[in-house]
Amino acid sequence: MPTPEQMVAVVQAYVDAFAAGDADAAAALFAEGATVEDPVGTPRKQGLDEIRAFYALSMATGAKLEMLGEPRCAADYVAFPFAVRLEWDGRPTTIEVIDTFRIDDAGKITEMRAFFGPANMKSA
Amino acid sequence: MPTPEQMVAVVQAYVDAFAAGDADAAAALFAEGATVEDPVGTPRKQGLDEIRAFYALSMATGAKLEMLGEPRCAADYVAFPFAVRLEWDGRPTTIEVIDTFRIDDAGKITEMRAFFGPANMKSA
Repeated sequence: MPTPEQMVAVVQAYVDAFAAGDADAAAALFAEGATVEDPVGTPRKQGLDEIRAFYALSMATGAKLEMLGEPRCAADYVAFPFAVRLEWDGRPTTIEVIDTFRIDDAGKITEMRAFFGPANMKSA
Repeated sequence: MPTPEQMVAVVQAYVDAFAAGDADAAAALFAEGATVEDPVGTPRKQGLDEIRAFYALSMATGAKLEMLGEPRCAADYVAFPFAVRLEWDGRPTTIEVIDTFRIDDAGKITEMRAFFGPANMKSA
């Protein structure tokens, strides 16, 4: 079981990867066969190649993350509320999101799910 | 698929049930065979009898919920950040939590998971 400190560090490293626009750094947080469902309800990306490509695309929008509350650690999961700030259709846009990460004993993310919908996207 | 409006109304009704200290009202938001994993990593309560008993115990602490951000709706899930305020060991305590609900076509919760750990509990 990962420790809460390990899981909080993964969340911070994820935010930092976006700040640096570094898709490799984001992908490096994931385990080999990990899945990314972003947003929930869409087809899952699986494996490091798909995950790296997904983050490269996301970061190409200039997306930056801002935590909106503390990470909540429970067993091998961490959930956290944050805002994504990006350029969308030429306009500054904010999306309020909640992510859940499941994390293995090596401190790598095995499952990521992102919860947000159209009502959480606002011009700003 | 439930609409985002339906799902946000369920979240509001859940907060209202705590405000009223009404465990029956909370249980009435769940589908027949629903599961409650609170917190994540502990044995799941299953079925309306276990769920009602669980909320009766929770509410006996005087627990009230305060939303800490907007609900995030994605497909048939809604995730939301909130604080639980309760009396714990004779002291006013706040716990920052994220819940996820999965909701069926009838607007009933089929799966509830609560994400929080010791680091999210504070005197206050």
